[in-house]
Amino acid sequence: MRALFFHKKPKYSRDYPTPKRAEGEALIRVLQAGICNTDIEIVRGYMPFQGVLGHEFVGVVEGAGDKTWIGKRVVGEINCPCRECEYCRPALERSEGQGLGNHCPNRKVLGILGKDGAFADYLTLPMANLHELPASISNLQAVFVEPIAAAFRILEQVDIGPKDKVAVLGDGKLGLLVAQVIASTGCELTAIGRHPEKLEILASPEPERFRARKKIKLVLSKAEGTVLAMNQNGSWLAGEGLPSGFDLCIDCTGSPKGLELALGLVRPMGKIVLKSTFAGGERLNLSPLVVNEVVLLGSRCGPFKRAIEALREGAVEVDNMVAKVYDLEEAVKAFGLASKKGVLKVVLDMT
Amino acid sequence: MRALFFHKKPKYSRDYPTPKRAEGEALIRVLQAGICNTDIEIVRGYMPFQGVLGHEFVGVVEGAGDKTWIGKRVVGEINCPCRECEYCRPALERSEGQGLGNHCPNRKVLGILGKDGAFADYLTLPMANLHELPASISNLQAVFVEPIAAAFRILEQVDIGPKDKVAVLGDGKLGLLVAQVIASTGCELTAIGRHPEKLEILASPEPERFRARKKIKLVLSKAEGTVLAMNQNGSWLAGEGLPSGFDLCIDCTGSPKGLELALGLVRPMGKIVLKSTFAGGERLNLSPLVVNEVVLLGSRCGPFKRAIEALREGAVEVDNMVAKVYDLEEAVKAFGLASKKGVLKVVLDMT
Repeated sequence: MRALFFHKKPKYSRDYPTPKRAEGEALIRVLQAGICNTDIEIVRGYMPFQGVLGHEFVGVVEGAGDKTWIGKRVVGEINCPCRECEYCRPALERSEGQGLGNHCPNRKVLGILGKDGAFADYLTLPMANLHELPASISNLQAVFVEPIAAAFRILEQVDIGPKDKVAVLGDGKLGLLVAQVIASTGCELTAIGRHPEKLEILASPEPERFRARKKIKLVLSKAEGTVLAMNQNGSWLAGEGLPSGFDLCIDCTGSPKGLELALGLVRPMGKIVLKSTFAGGERLNLSPLVVNEVVLLGSRCGPFKRAIEALREGAVEVDNMVAKVYDLEEAVKAFGLASKKGVLKVVLDMT
Repeated sequence: MRALFFHKKPKYSRDYPTPKRAEGEALIRVLQAGICNTDIEIVRGYMPFQGVLGHEFVGVVEGAGDKTWIGKRVVGEINCPCRECEYCRPALERSEGQGLGNHCPNRKVLGILGKDGAFADYLTLPMANLHELPASISNLQAVFVEPIAAAFRILEQVDIGPKDKVAVLGDGKLGLLVAQVIASTGCELTAIGRHPEKLEILASPEPERFRARKKIKLVLSKAEGTVLAMNQNGSWLAGEGLPSGFDLCIDCTGSPKGLELALGLVRPMGKIVLKSTFAGGERLNLSPLVVNEVVLLGSRCGPFKRAIEALREGAVEVDNMVAKVYDLEEAVKAFGLASKKGVLKVVLDMT
């Protein structure tokens, strides 16, 4: 089959071996797959992974033990826990899905850890990981289910209500999804980024169903320190420095500088959610975290069901977040574009 | 009056101006005061403080608006909030003492921020900060109330029960107090340090009242990587590497390496409490925090009432934690000893 695989660098092959489904797994023909920052960080050395990259996908089931799944259009959770260890057992027993199982020390993770991923004609995943898609969600939209689920993970970890003052740092792919998901809580939300054209996606003056999002305050913080805020007419006007005193800051910058910024913006005894993973360590002064008794939460994968529902209801808008769609043959070129700073979602098409 | 003050370096003076109590404050004659790692970090540049150092003290009230306080032996909370701002008001209204007020942005902090401290014959503090001592607590013991309160702060932030597997990292002054306080929860506790003679303080096979502490598992982790564990007879035997999978790790190492160690010992979705503040930043890879969804909590000052009660009940033992008592005249020398690695509590005596 065709595949983009990583071995020292991303390579394209027409003859990569088609995966065979194990007991309990489905064989899925991939329709489309999105390139995520994690893919780019793997290439930069964040994880020692080798094999087919990619974990954000939509596909059709072609092989399964339960034949009723054949032909269904699905997305799939990326963590494949062993379902036998102490992390998996309580999760199964408590019927909490894969909450703790996502941390199974023996897990494989699609396109990230020990399991070939989605930048290929076929992939395999446990049946338990699959979610059927409603017809109203397009393939291109479905590619966003995995990162939207990661955004919803925050709502499983932190209570957010209308009285909370929340900042989302970073206007990249994940930041824009997180901002939309967090806006659904009705909190007082500020999105802080460096790119006007990306922040403006959140200002879309569109239909009724985006009403919640219109309340997002947009703040443009340029590298040279200029701070601009968007007014009600959609114009960028000079602000008075970055707002601060946030109850919660969510770092989606993908940069080690994000946490430092968050530590400066969060109120004493406030919370910071860290969504970014990246290769390499960074010099960091954590004294403000101790002195201000800040709580820092790491946050990773989330609930697919809520993500699918949010897309179906139009609570999260993704159509204007696609930078470009490439055929799988052009995968290396696509990867090059996705690696460029400021580029939104690059999607590979296998059809 | 006599005082040890900090101006570029610690200096002793016989003629430092005696402080005058403001409205609502008490004038306190200091009896004894302990040297804390924070004092040493201030000298290293952690805070831009100048003035009399010291914040762990016991003293006698000599001046107060309410004359019933005169002559009482007291300890005092170190944060002096403005009692007017948004952080102070809700704290006062909710009668939660100074919980959020400890984070008042206008606060002064005894011997740390904008207010002369305890390494002197006299200090002043708001009446609301004072706690009278029962006669059964000695002056030397009372010097430990402030750091014991800081240890109890952890129990206000994290629920710890008998089923929890907890590690305290660091066998310095704060680590030994934290280990004793955490042991009182009945959790499965491991104390990890580098100094056998200090860890052994926790193994004291003493009277009934220390029974809780006997359950602490002691692990000696030497710089060169050797790991020893103390057996039931009080001997150090070779272990099999550092234990891991802790629900909670409490970093009291005072070193940036402590957090890195804690990230390796805590289980996925576990918690780390960070008690250490230190000058300067350090290179740190926080990816494990994100991937394992670890929660990191900064922790600072705590409840004096509980600390006094713990000393009174003998639940926390401090008599074997005093390295040396110096007269105030020898304060510079005392500071030199306290700055040496591995030295326990150095106390200044003003009587």
